[in-house]
This record gives sequence, C-alpha cells and structure tokens, in this order.
Amino acid sequence: MRPDQNSRLLALDWGTSSLRAYLLGPGGVVLQSRSEPWGIMFTPGGDFSATLASIVEAWQLPPSLPAIACGMVGSAQGWREVPYRLCPAGAAELAGGVVNVQRQDGGRLHIVPGLRLDTQPPDVMRGEETAIIGTIAETSDRADALFVLPGTHSKWVRVQDKRITAFETYMTGEMFAALRDHTILGRPARDAQAGMLAPAEDNAMPAAFTRGVTAIRDSGKTRLSALLFSVRTLVLMGQLSAQASLEYLSGLLIGEEISCAAVGGRLGPVLIGDPGLCNRYAHALGLFGIGCTAVSETAVVTGLWQIAGSLGLVEPVLEPSEGKHE
Amino acid sequence: MRPDQNSRLLALDWGTSSLRAYLLGPGGVVLQSRSEPWGIMFTPGGDFSATLASIVEAWQLPPSLPAIACGMVGSAQGWREVPYRLCPAGAAELAGGVVNVQRQDGGRLHIVPGLRLDTQPPDVMRGEETAIIGTIAETSDRADALFVLPGTHSKWVRVQDKRITAFETYMTGEMFAALRDHTILGRPARDAQAGMLAPAEDNAMPAAFTRGVTAIRDSGKTRLSALLFSVRTLVLMGQLSAQASLEYLSGLLIGEEISCAAVGGRLGPVLIGDPGLCNRYAHALGLFGIGCTAVSETAVVTGLWQIAGSLGLVEPVLEPSEGKHE
Repeated sequence: MRPDQNSRLLALDWGTSSLRAYLLGPGGVVLQSRSEPWGIMFTPGGDFSATLASIVEAWQLPPSLPAIACGMVGSAQGWREVPYRLCPAGAAELAGGVVNVQRQDGGRLHIVPGLRLDTQPPDVMRGEETAIIGTIAETSDRADALFVLPGTHSKWVRVQDKRITAFETYMTGEMFAALRDHTILGRPARDAQAGMLAPAEDNAMPAAFTRGVTAIRDSGKTRLSALLFSVRTLVLMGQLSAQASLEYLSGLLIGEEISCAAVGGRLGPVLIGDPGLCNRYAHALGLFGIGCTAVSETAVVTGLWQIAGSLGLVEPVLEPSEGKHE
Repeated sequence: MRPDQNSRLLALDWGTSSLRAYLLGPGGVVLQSRSEPWGIMFTPGGDFSATLASIVEAWQLPPSLPAIACGMVGSAQGWREVPYRLCPAGAAELAGGVVNVQRQDGGRLHIVPGLRLDTQPPDVMRGEETAIIGTIAETSDRADALFVLPGTHSKWVRVQDKRITAFETYMTGEMFAALRDHTILGRPARDAQAGMLAPAEDNAMPAAFTRGVTAIRDSGKTRLSALLFSVRTLVLMGQLSAQASLEYLSGLLIGEEISCAAVGGRLGPVLIGDPGLCNRYAHALGLFGIGCTAVSETAVVTGLWQIAGSLGLVEPVLEPSEGKHE
C-alpha cells in the first residue's frame, strides 16, 4: 500500500481496553481507520511505542506526519502521565496541556490531557473531553449544553461558552457487570446461560427495562439500594424471568443515574456513544420526561482534529458556516 | 462420648455458606455446638441427610430427640422447600408453617419457613426471622422495636406486638465484596495486596470509614451512585491510601443503607450479628444521630427453642420474669 499524499494527521483514541487509529486528510476527513483491542492494559508486550508502530504499519506514514492521542494513554498507567487540566477548559486549554513523546519512527506523538474538577470529592476524565470538544465543533448550537456519555463510567458534562465547566461520573456500566457476574442478582441468568444483555438497537425497549426505570422514578427519593434486592425477589416470586431480570437491573441502574444527575439542571442532554446504549438512555430519559438528542461516537476524531488545530499541527479549522474561497 | 441425658432439642442454623448445630438442654441451654462450612451450596456430596448425620455423629443422639432448623435449608435449593409465611408473623405463625423431613436415624427434622412481605416489589427472608423471635423472647422490652441484621444481605425488620410486620433488604455486604473484588474501585487495594477489610472490633473506627458515612449523610439526598467514583478519584489525588479507600467505600455503602432505610421510622434499632460488624453499624448510626443497642448473634438458638416450644417439641417456655417453683 502506498502512502496517502493527502495525510494530514494521525489521530488516536487510546483507552483502557482498545486502541483506535484514524488517518485524517484535509479538513479532518477520515482516510483510513483501524481498531485493535490494544488498550493500555493490553498493549502487546507492554510496549506503547511498538504497539503504535504496529497499528499504522500498513499506512507507511512519514515521520513528519503529526500525531495526536487522547484517553488513558495519558494516565499513570499509560505511555506518559499527562497532568490533568483544571475545569473550566475548552480546546485551547486542552492544547495548552499537551505533552509529547517520541515515536519509533522519530516523529512525535502529542497526548491530550484529561480534565480534573477540583471539587470535594474531586472528579476526573480522560478521553471524553476530546469527544465533547469535537461535538461542540460539529454544530453551532452546542456551545451551551449538557452532554451524557454513557458507558462503563458514564459522564454527565456541562458545557458553557464552548468550555467544560463541570461534570459527574456514574459507574453504571461497571456496576451492572459486577452485579450481573458476581452477585446473587445475576445467578438466574447465569444458570440459564443468558447473561448477555442484548443492546437495545431499536425502539422496542424491553418491558422489564422500563419497569426498572419507573421503579426508581416513582420511589420518591433515589432508592437504588432499597430496590436492588427486588431483582432477586421478583424472580423468586415468578414475576420476572431470568433474562428479564437483567433488563430490570439495567433499568434500575440507569434510572438511578438519571435520578441522581444534577450537573445539567433541567437541560435535555446530547448523548454521545454506542447507538444501542444511547437508545437505552434516550428511552429512560423519556420516562423521566426529559428530551435528548444523540450523536455518533466518532466525535472524538473531530475533537482530536480541533485540538491539533489549536496546537498548529494542522491548518486552522474553518467555522462550519464558512466556505473555502482560496 | 456418651449421649447426654439432658438433651432436649437439636437446633440447626443452616444457611447458604455454613451449618451450625447446637445440642440444647432443659430451658434451651446450649450443651454442645459445632460449626462447619457445610452451607446448602457446600453440603458434602450434596446430601443433606448424610451431612446432618455427620455433624452430630459424636453426640450419639437418639432418633426420638426432636430436631429443628431454620435458614436457606428450607429454600428451593435446600433440603425441602418450605413455603414462605406472610407477614405479619410471630413464633406461632412460623410454627404453623413448619414442614418436616426424615432424618437418616429415622427421626424427623422440622424446618422453619421464611417470611414474605407481599408488597410491590416483594421482599423475603430465611433465617433472620428466627433470630428476631429469639431476641424478642430474651427480654421483655423488644415486643415493639426495630431490628437490624447487618451482613451480606442486611435486613431492617419492624416488630410490633412480638410479630414481624415489615422489613427491607439491603445488599450492602455483597455489594461491598463485588465492588472491591471486581471493579476499578478495589484495584489499588488489590495491587497493594491489602484487600481484606479489618473488622472494626473496638471503638477506634477508621477515619476513612467515618468520612464515607458522613459524605453520604451530608449529600442532601441519597447519592451513593454520584459518590461511588470518588473512591477512585480520592486515591488518584493522593487524598486516600489504597487500604483507606476500602474503609471509605464501606462507609459510603453503610451510610447509604442507613440513609435509605425507612421501615423503622425514627426508632433506634437493635443490632443482631457479628460483633465487629455491629460495632461498625453502631458507629455509622451514631453519625446520623441514631442510638442503638447490640445483641449477640446466637439469638437464633433462642428463636429455634421458642418455635420448637410452639410446636410442642419441648416443654413450654417460661416467661423471663417467672421462677421455677415445681
């Protein structure tokens, strides 16, 4: 394969469990992409430099091509620890905290810092900030908005004047997996070998999921702890099947997250992430009477392009409303 | 060893993880006791009858000796499923639901039913009801009281006129173990090989535990979900050590349980269970301004004696204030 003459930037979304590489052309358009399960906990041989060389090997990139990464690659367990930037922060503040390391080909890799919220207790993120910067850039009506990035550690993020001003973390995805796989709540489904929760890809949301969300919504105050054991008792009493009990558990956890989240006031959020999971959240938000919009999970690529622009690694980014006249 | 001529009742506390056998004399006094890790999930060979014969073998009991058991031995996964009794229920109602099975020696084993609360969602218990019946019998001032039995599945139980009228289950102990062993929250302690939480046997309660309880108490509404990730961020920011982070997590979970519990109104509870764990709960309750008293975990033996009395298996129980005059 010949090197692509249009290459402008190598952009990496390098998290805990996976590494996604994007080769970007003029304006940030994706020319090539590749994904491997080489998250920072799973890099072959524990060698970040060799892992990067390996994922882009077929693209024959010149050492002069700028490269930028975000995510857990900048954590203490990553390639190089990049200190958190404090909120509030936008693309310029994030660019100001970038640290770079040497690539195997002699070029540099710029690593975007995560964000820290200096509250008591504090909160942190690494990677989500870049997706949000990208989402803000994509359309002009998101300069002041609430963003929700559902997942292992869901983030609720408040943006004001294009800068991240506050956020909250909910361990909803990780809680679901731990409760399903390692407590009595998941035993019926484990015994039935039906432990995987099907992603809700369409609007036919399982009734048991709705039941879980509404149980939390109608419990007066946030009462996940008081309702959790009902995942077991409803199965014992024959009121839920083993598989449905996991949908109900998912509804309880997502309902609790929505019920607790305070950072956005009464704003309807913009959802960023896996479409099936976003659909699940949209349904749950609707049960609380909250509207939302969903955007693709590739916003992180736009965010990396934006931050690279702030660093002068690529040509300045045009405003969405402007055309190219030169 | 010769059979004890004073034997009146064989009493078994047969739960999920352990089997405790007590040989009781006149008035329910404990003559002998033995404990084995032969809970219903771990009976040798899956044979309940042989397991019972094995644990009492040295005592050479006659087949005519009455025997009674409570706990998960009466569940669908136990020796014989004994249908739940509905609340409200006291010693007489529990005795009315007893089912018996044949022992290897030709005698019978009576199995006490669990209790079901017919709310939406429903709740259930098996074993705790017997400990509470015993605790009520031990002193005269517990006919109307709130009982808390901390553990894997903590129970908050309301007793009125010596009968259990309502209860709630909190999966606090199981949640703690799942979060410690199977999420990112326990990783620092796992890496430090310091994953065991020392039971708080004295009044020197770890400061991090207190911090967790008060964080929940002061969070306005019950906000465990919003605070859970702080177990990680406080370690990341160097504000908590790996070991202290588990104490903080324990404080969050127990604080949330206390914060959610509603069944007792404003009653100060009677704690029943492991002394170290009860001490932890007493400290947390104190931080909420709630007083409590603690009783030993052997109340279940008194409860089994009481129910056996209701069944006519042993001589009628004397009231605590009466002496023996015959």
